[in-house]
Amino acid sequence: MRGSEWVRSGIGRATAERITVCGLDVADDLMGKVSFPDLAFLLVVRRLPDERESRLFNAVLVSLADHGLTPSVLAARLTYTGAPESLQGAIAAGLLGAGSVFLGPTEDTARFLHDIVAGLSEREATDHLLRDMALTAVRESVGAGRRVPGLGHPVHKVTDPRVPRLYDIASECDLLGPHLRLLDAVADAYGEVIGRRLPINGAGAAGAALADLGMPPDLARGFALLARVAGLIGHLAEERTSPLGMALYREMEERMVYDHPGDE
Amino acid sequence: MRGSEWVRSGIGRATAERITVCGLDVADDLMGKVSFPDLAFLLVVRRLPDERESRLFNAVLVSLADHGLTPSVLAARLTYTGAPESLQGAIAAGLLGAGSVFLGPTEDTARFLHDIVAGLSEREATDHLLRDMALTAVRESVGAGRRVPGLGHPVHKVTDPRVPRLYDIASECDLLGPHLRLLDAVADAYGEVIGRRLPINGAGAAGAALADLGMPPDLARGFALLARVAGLIGHLAEERTSPLGMALYREMEERMVYDHPGDE
Amino acid sequence: MRGSEWVRSGIGRATAERITVCGLDVADDLMGKVSFPDLAFLLVVRRLPDERESRLFNAVLVSLADHGLTPSVLAARLTYTGAPESLQGAIAAGLLGAGSVFLGPTEDTARFLHDIVAGLSEREATDHLLRDMALTAVRESVGAGRRVPGLGHPVHKVTDPRVPRLYDIASECDLLGPHLRLLDAVADAYGEVIGRRLPINGAGAAGAALADLGMPPDLARGFALLARVAGLIGHLAEERTSPLGMALYREMEERMVYDHPGDE
Amino acid sequence: MRGSEWVRSGIGRATAERITVCGLDVADDLMGKVSFPDLAFLLVVRRLPDERESRLFNAVLVSLADHGLTPSVLAARLTYTGAPESLQGAIAAGLLGAGSVFLGPTEDTARFLHDIVAGLSEREATDHLLRDMALTAVRESVGAGRRVPGLGHPVHKVTDPRVPRLYDIASECDLLGPHLRLLDAVADAYGEVIGRRLPINGAGAAGAALADLGMPPDLARGFALLARVAGLIGHLAEERTSPLGMALYREMEERMVYDHPGDE
Repeated sequence: MRGSEWVRSGIGRATAERITVCGLDVADDLMGKVSFPDLAFLLVVRRLPDERESRLFNAVLVSLADHGLTPSVLAARLTYTGAPESLQGAIAAGLLGAGSVFLGPTEDTARFLHDIVAGLSEREATDHLLRDMALTAVRESVGAGRRVPGLGHPVHKVTDPRVPRLYDIASECDLLGPHLRLLDAVADAYGEVIGRRLPINGAGAAGAALADLGMPPDLARGFALLARVAGLIGHLAEERTSPLGMALYREMEERMVYDHPGDE
Repeated sequence: MRGSEWVRSGIGRATAERITVCGLDVADDLMGKVSFPDLAFLLVVRRLPDERESRLFNAVLVSLADHGLTPSVLAARLTYTGAPESLQGAIAAGLLGAGSVFLGPTEDTARFLHDIVAGLSEREATDHLLRDMALTAVRESVGAGRRVPGLGHPVHKVTDPRVPRLYDIASECDLLGPHLRLLDAVADAYGEVIGRRLPINGAGAAGAALADLGMPPDLARGFALLARVAGLIGHLAEERTSPLGMALYREMEERMVYDHPGDE
Repeated sequence: MRGSEWVRSGIGRATAERITVCGLDVADDLMGKVSFPDLAFLLVVRRLPDERESRLFNAVLVSLADHGLTPSVLAARLTYTGAPESLQGAIAAGLLGAGSVFLGPTEDTARFLHDIVAGLSEREATDHLLRDMALTAVRESVGAGRRVPGLGHPVHKVTDPRVPRLYDIASECDLLGPHLRLLDAVADAYGEVIGRRLPINGAGAAGAALADLGMPPDLARGFALLARVAGLIGHLAEERTSPLGMALYREMEERMVYDHPGDE
Repeated sequence: MRGSEWVRSGIGRATAERITVCGLDVADDLMGKVSFPDLAFLLVVRRLPDERESRLFNAVLVSLADHGLTPSVLAARLTYTGAPESLQGAIAAGLLGAGSVFLGPTEDTARFLHDIVAGLSEREATDHLLRDMALTAVRESVGAGRRVPGLGHPVHKVTDPRVPRLYDIASECDLLGPHLRLLDAVADAYGEVIGRRLPINGAGAAGAALADLGMPPDLARGFALLARVAGLIGHLAEERTSPLGMALYREMEERMVYDHPGDE
């Protein structure tokens, strides 16, 4: 047990003279030569992306960075209200709500699609086959009373504006892979089975694109979190100068109906 | 109090048809056109960076992304051991240690330098003046028994390899601003005052560069956190397939000397 | 939408003159009269426990407070290493690993048992019926390849010392309810079905006891977290004076085998 | 470096047969015999409290458990909205705002008082001496433009109802020690120096009482967090059945004034 063979890592190492990330020298090979998103890609896929992959990956991150005053953003800003000296705590609080309801769909969609097309080569993944697979999978999910992930959005009821744009970029980059194409077929199949079409949502399209870029489905949520940190920093920068946390607290206290009869 | 005037934000907004970030349309203006780091810059500085600023900003983020099996990385991997289904929790745990000891120096250095050169124009900030200011500030800090931030590193005792590289990139980009130049002068002044030179550390140089890029000092830590999330995702990707959390726990339990005499 | 009817709570309220929790005055009705665990009970069950319930509830919390240098404790101590000024961050990090692997079993067991006996009156829950129900449930879980929660422990392979003690206390308090009794029957049934008996673990017994005390199963994890905070404070108190975080980091760095051939 | 002497702890240990906390057997010595708050006390002070200490300690925890829909509670409930499957994340989010603004005053007050009376024996701490010390300390703080911690409250402008009650209980328990007495003198001194009396706040009185109970000042915040977890569990129990997170999000989105002219 006390052998060291388990203390093993291929991510980073720091010695007195050099810092290495994924086998590359941070100073000589990475800084000034590789963009930050390309490094993030490298850290998971274990190779650098080519230019087209980099473009699609950036587009995915950009699409997920911010979505207004979401519950996560409010949690971060309210945390900053109490502990402005610990920015890391406010950002952590803003990430902790990225669960099954909010950013989870990115991962759920990646996983759902991956379970269907895993092992399928690019050439085998014909439109015809994907359509059949989509229909089968949707029927099965609907039959079992399970949600089909990646479809529908409480705000973007007709079209989520990020989705057609992401498909266009993937197409321009020649990266419209089996996951993105299957997701499109799933949306069609869902309309067919249910009789009412739901739009693909941005989280779902992002999950499909990340899977097409070679990311393991259960890490798709990680990139959604990375993107979200940029948005959170923006909101906390704003909270410093135009705070809303304290006003929100005061208004809630004032409006609150206290549910214990006899007490006011 | 119940007026809405305080519910005000210039970061993001989502309506049924469009998503806006900092006044730009996510689908039409940002996705596929603006890189993710440029969006992160926009969210705080409220304008897009030019190409040189973008290059320096990426280099800073790359320099901070990973530093091996740090306490933060270990905390994230150990958290994943217990809750692999909540990636957001493991990443949050990995951020929470980014305080005064570890990533705080990025902010401390930015703040220390900013307090000295704030309000100084580029043209006023001559080498001569910065040298004088550095000497005064170092003497004051040392006299008061305060640490001078940005200097010294437990691992990189002679040179932190990220630092000369970051200065080179800043110089190539014509972005060697008053903060980076002052930090250099501070290292010289420290050697003069104490009689032993300490190298500038990577966190400090990053903080100075972020300040030269126009970031408020108290948000410098935020970008260190953003960078660190990429490294954490890499480590968690590795933890999924080559876990070390459970082996570490077992070894600690086995080696632990229990401090209550009479109990074993 | 802007009506206030949704801003409704029965937990706490603070006005200029008084603070109320669950309809009781904090100063007049609670402080000095109600113990802290009784208040925690009140906050969820919405009535104060009687003396026997209080004794069992305290025993459950005591049983879950600490289990040595667990991954959660290590995560908290390593977080403190980087951010000693933010105790809340170290404690939060120590809670975030309380997921499916570590404290989740408390909840999983409570839920598993509750799904079986919900709606059963005390009088209907005869030993005979519980035995039959246990056998059916275990056969079903084993047949479907699912884990039976609440059984087995990596360290306490024969008996988890907390379990017989908790059953004794419950029995002394006349609170050996359907969940605790069913869990016992489940352990028997598992031995019968598999041919090898696994001991009931402390997390499982705690979950069963909390369910017998009237806690909703999906909040059982909450009380495990409450208990764990006490243990974490103890470890952080120790970390202040006998730190192990930095030494652990140094040893890991030194022992690490870097997995990228050609780089060392 | 690889010696094991640093892997040392006096908190908890688990072997196959027994679990020990602070040298006591969890099953035989603690469960059913020691209350949960007494165990929490033991974990930090390293001895069990006597009955009077236990009563005061419980009163402190009760006084800090809940204060209505605070920013911390809102952060926890909003986090639950996005990730209901990870209760630990919602509770962690609710703790992360316990910083300099909200629960920090407990620690700040304990530290402020402790810095003044540390080393003073019970007998030396005469009313007269404490009055003098208070006056000196307040004059110094006010002169240096520093806040005097423990005084004033945005809601309880005249009296914080927890404070007289806590002093009464401490007095009944014969535990009105130098910290609590000094805090009272500080409030008087502040009124004298400034000409306007501020009430002692609940966080400050709690910090003073914890210090009188022998807790190190920098762990006072830890007990405030422990108390707060009970309140958070109550709020999350309520959020499960009477959610307000999603309604709050919707209302904020609807009311938000977007600050970028030309975009709406």
